[in-house]
Amino acid sequence: MPAPEASVRNQTAGIVGAGSIGSAFAIVFATAGHSVVVQDPDAGSLEKAQARVATSLRELREFDLLEGSIEEIASRIGYVTDLRQAVCQADFIQECAPERLELKQPLFTEIERHARPDAIIASSASAIPASQSMGHLDSKHRCLVCHPGNPPYLIPVIEIVPAPFTDPDIAEKARQFFAAAGMSPIIVRKEVEGFVFNRLQGAMLREAYCLFRDGVASIEEIDSIVREGLGMRWSFMGPFETVDLNTQGGLASHALKMGPAYARMGKERGQDDPWTAELVERATAERRAALPIDDWQARTEWRDRQLMALLGHRRRMAANQSTDTAAKAVS
Amino acid sequence: MPAPEASVRNQTAGIVGAGSIGSAFAIVFATAGHSVVVQDPDAGSLEKAQARVATSLRELREFDLLEGSIEEIASRIGYVTDLRQAVCQADFIQECAPERLELKQPLFTEIERHARPDAIIASSASAIPASQSMGHLDSKHRCLVCHPGNPPYLIPVIEIVPAPFTDPDIAEKARQFFAAAGMSPIIVRKEVEGFVFNRLQGAMLREAYCLFRDGVASIEEIDSIVREGLGMRWSFMGPFETVDLNTQGGLASHALKMGPAYARMGKERGQDDPWTAELVERATAERRAALPIDDWQARTEWRDRQLMALLGHRRRMAANQSTDTAAKAVS
Repeated sequence: MPAPEASVRNQTAGIVGAGSIGSAFAIVFATAGHSVVVQDPDAGSLEKAQARVATSLRELREFDLLEGSIEEIASRIGYVTDLRQAVCQADFIQECAPERLELKQPLFTEIERHARPDAIIASSASAIPASQSMGHLDSKHRCLVCHPGNPPYLIPVIEIVPAPFTDPDIAEKARQFFAAAGMSPIIVRKEVEGFVFNRLQGAMLREAYCLFRDGVASIEEIDSIVREGLGMRWSFMGPFETVDLNTQGGLASHALKMGPAYARMGKERGQDDPWTAELVERATAERRAALPIDDWQARTEWRDRQLMALLGHRRRMAANQSTDTAAKAVS
Repeated sequence: MPAPEASVRNQTAGIVGAGSIGSAFAIVFATAGHSVVVQDPDAGSLEKAQARVATSLRELREFDLLEGSIEEIASRIGYVTDLRQAVCQADFIQECAPERLELKQPLFTEIERHARPDAIIASSASAIPASQSMGHLDSKHRCLVCHPGNPPYLIPVIEIVPAPFTDPDIAEKARQFFAAAGMSPIIVRKEVEGFVFNRLQGAMLREAYCLFRDGVASIEEIDSIVREGLGMRWSFMGPFETVDLNTQGGLASHALKMGPAYARMGKERGQDDPWTAELVERATAERRAALPIDDWQARTEWRDRQLMALLGHRRRMAANQSTDTAAKAVS
């Protein structure tokens, strides 16, 4: 039996808004084999989008990240100023308008008016939930947020965030649609402001701004501490696996050892969300199901090899960069 | 004139504690050309450390990350059970004992007793400041925290955290010592619990635990959203540069557009640390000094090429991993 993802091919995708997110989605959908129509009321924005897509496709080819010919992929993308034209034939509609509720609401009314009754309508909103932007629609059961990173053709993650009114089948279909396009979709289980991605990013930024405000470190020093430390591990492990592997005995042991210090730091910021024994037990159960404690040592060795490979990659990047700079200096 | 770092060679480093951090520091110091003595009261731990160092050196060679011969580097490291022997000749002493105040305090008393009067005494503590662990010493002016990531020979960042009583020259010397060893030292400007690294990591973990507790996402889903998204960008940019490049108009524009949403999310967690106009202005001034707004567009293109190179790296890693698995399956 083919994976469910295999059936998601040769569809028509409508993209509303030709900014950087819209044009990046055009690349994702066209390289996945779909016909794409990008709409923007401003013809100048469409021209820029087309140029941006062409440049990105060339760069993807240079980095050996593109399957198929540039011309063929580019030929799958149309550009129109008329909203109706972009959405009337689409199986999947991705709204990429600016992050303003008062703009998105009437836009979704308009999209719904022209969309096929079976089309999925997705919003790229990074913090506005579908309940707010799409709750007024008649066919809201097929509406949801699909929030990408920036730019979506280079950041695999995409958060599928259904509202309470979204049909669960629609969320699953959206998940399959993005998985088939090579992305890493995650269905967020509750509709909260900021979803998961920006909740985590916000927590990071709030603390970073506090440290800067209080004169503990400069903007560049904070960036450096992440870039040369935390971010390297998070780029292939995520925060839970990182601390699970950081402490003999894993996550449970980490919570016991570091939990009180983190709770004190949180309290200084007004936060009181204790890591109760029950909470840590549930988190640990999930980690240990994914990585039995007997495999822990081998996984720390895997982590070290991942870090070595990443360091090697960084050194090559730095060497290329200085070669480029030297080349520019003599040219 | 040679860089100040160039003079930091051929010193003697004493490492107190032969766990994973201690043995990793032995690699850092020995590859930098120093003589190293690792001390642990437990002979078994020393044996394990020696084996761990040998394995890591072999792996570093495999990944082409090692300058010099394995034998030569390994021969610079001695292993002793006697504390006095490890510290009495050292220029630089790095304490790597377990993260417990009641253990560290008497240990530093003992280290001070045997140390040369001009030796620098550094603690690897990840959250305990020098004021707490070393404030009782007579020669506390030469004491400070030097907190690494894990493992220190693969994570470049190291936080140099002087206490109010630490001589600023000592902090600067420690910075030079680690810079000469190829690390990326940052002098933290105020002694706060958790320093910068674990303040940021703590903010991330607290929010991650809340999202898991509230049923918004599973442990693995949270890790995946970081790994396939946030962490990729943070691995070469850090949090401020990331959002600076994410919004037309840069950091100031980001704060205007996303600030209110992040403030609401923070309020839900009890936090009230507003991004005031003055704060954002100061942060922006620093970013714009590092990256003038005229270079902003070119830097977003640099970001995209960095992401492409990182994706290429990840694909090669995944391909190697499946080759390894296939090789194991047929062997």
